[in-house]
Amino acid sequence: MAKAITLLESTRADHRAQGDALLTELLPHTGHAFRLGISGVPGVGKSTFIEALGLHLIAQGHRVAVLAIDPSSTVSGGSILGDKTRMEHLSVHPQAYIRPSPSSGTLGGVAAKTREAMLVCEAAGHDVVIVETVGVGQSETAVAGMTDMFVLLQLPNAGDDLQAIKKGVMELADLVVINKADIDRDAATRAQAQITSALRILGQHGNPEHAHHDASHWHPQVLQLSALKGEGVDAFWQAVTRFRSLQEADGRLASRRRHQALAWMWERIESGLKQAFRQDPAVRALLPQMTNEVEQGTLAASTAARRLLDALKTNGERHA
Amino acid sequence: MAKAITLLESTRADHRAQGDALLTELLPHTGHAFRLGISGVPGVGKSTFIEALGLHLIAQGHRVAVLAIDPSSTVSGGSILGDKTRMEHLSVHPQAYIRPSPSSGTLGGVAAKTREAMLVCEAAGHDVVIVETVGVGQSETAVAGMTDMFVLLQLPNAGDDLQAIKKGVMELADLVVINKADIDRDAATRAQAQITSALRILGQHGNPEHAHHDASHWHPQVLQLSALKGEGVDAFWQAVTRFRSLQEADGRLASRRRHQALAWMWERIESGLKQAFRQDPAVRALLPQMTNEVEQGTLAASTAARRLLDALKTNGERHA
Repeated sequence: MAKAITLLESTRADHRAQGDALLTELLPHTGHAFRLGISGVPGVGKSTFIEALGLHLIAQGHRVAVLAIDPSSTVSGGSILGDKTRMEHLSVHPQAYIRPSPSSGTLGGVAAKTREAMLVCEAAGHDVVIVETVGVGQSETAVAGMTDMFVLLQLPNAGDDLQAIKKGVMELADLVVINKADIDRDAATRAQAQITSALRILGQHGNPEHAHHDASHWHPQVLQLSALKGEGVDAFWQAVTRFRSLQEADGRLASRRRHQALAWMWERIESGLKQAFRQDPAVRALLPQMTNEVEQGTLAASTAARRLLDALKTNGERHA
Repeated sequence: MAKAITLLESTRADHRAQGDALLTELLPHTGHAFRLGISGVPGVGKSTFIEALGLHLIAQGHRVAVLAIDPSSTVSGGSILGDKTRMEHLSVHPQAYIRPSPSSGTLGGVAAKTREAMLVCEAAGHDVVIVETVGVGQSETAVAGMTDMFVLLQLPNAGDDLQAIKKGVMELADLVVINKADIDRDAATRAQAQITSALRILGQHGNPEHAHHDASHWHPQVLQLSALKGEGVDAFWQAVTRFRSLQEADGRLASRRRHQALAWMWERIESGLKQAFRQDPAVRALLPQMTNEVEQGTLAASTAARRLLDALKTNGERHA
């Protein structure tokens, strides 16, 4: 499994061709797992939560895979997520598989590799795939865009919810967990009420493009939990199971996955177009001058864009 | 002026070439105006506000242009903004120019046309250009991305601010105006306190990519105003002038405009690349099958994307 994922993560052209062939072969064996996205700021207790949840699920007979998307790893080359030592017991369990974040490439590229790794895990028989990300950057949207359910972990702090609302992460959440609730029960209860109210307001005026919550089906819930003490993990999984049943019953799960796959295809196309543009010799020759003139204000940005697009086109025709 | 703008709005290739030549000629005469972006939900009183502000500015010797970006007009072909009858006195004033939203194209295309119209207005001697948009869709980001200062109009209602925070519009605001403050002074004062506090929290944890507010320079302000009664318009313009002086003094205005111009160039490039992709005959031939297989789950989205990109490339080479 690790070898297959490594092959898919390779950027070598021959590996890529083999990887595509492998993926196409694996696809019929995928899709049976439940894909759970988990996000939260550093310090919210993601590792402890996933370890507690993973062991709970294994005890129930599930096989669990944990993948990570760490936007910081694309800069530093090192991942703050997916470090196996963080999940002491889960990482050594034979029914669990933990894979750190791919450590190079754009967020789009990292997300694509993680999606492919997810398919490998599913084909290998893991029936719960957890994709975790840290709450910085745009990685939450990527994770929500590849999972069946997106869970946001929050601390029982005032202001934490405002940050999540601001970044548009709150409205992606199918479920909000207030972790470390045992530390201050009153604060956790206040946060629960506050977030519940915010979710209701957000849902009312929701942007129809992002709204995957229909009032008649599922209201995003807010649960209190203490991963460290293992409190609330069972209730959490019951909520996940309820959500999953509702989504499967009326075809929403299948529809969500279709939309996600198409969005993924278009994201990869746009990324590929931009890459080809930036690597084109005629564009590379012209770009510094165009950039300079636009910055100096001697050339309109739209004119510069048209010249560069023309250069790309002409070069493509001459090249053949 | 209207003719120049109409030329720039044309999609005909020969018009486009003339338009580019015109723009390049006009550019040295642009950039001296102050560019003010104004957004707010329908019913917040944008027209009344702009009419009051525009007449106030003309009385001070300014020449005012009002442009509009209406995301709904790209769908309906008709604009709910820029209707001259909305600004009864300003629209007939010789020192004012009002132009409705371009009524076709994508939001990116409409924004590009509006940017070009803005340059024409500046070259024609208008020293205050107001770009207004209605608070639906992503048009606020487009307007904030082409103006020197972005002002958000809010109603003295609870929940209104939460919507703005959710959509990421609040953090774009250099200034928030609570309009219709005369209707309910207490509510307006409560809203002012609430938004001031929200702006402080947003500023503290601000995403550095979007943060153009430096604590030492400008804290986004919240003002109460009644456009209908003309109350607060003078204080509003004083705040704008203060902001402008600060921004000009340390080169932030020039830097903001450079960034905006480059972002505009890249936005137009990406849009052009996507358009060329969708119009390519080989892509058009292959796209329905790829879309179908991705939706059915028989082909990985990343594999489909690679095949389509290969088809585009091969076709470009064969075509020449």
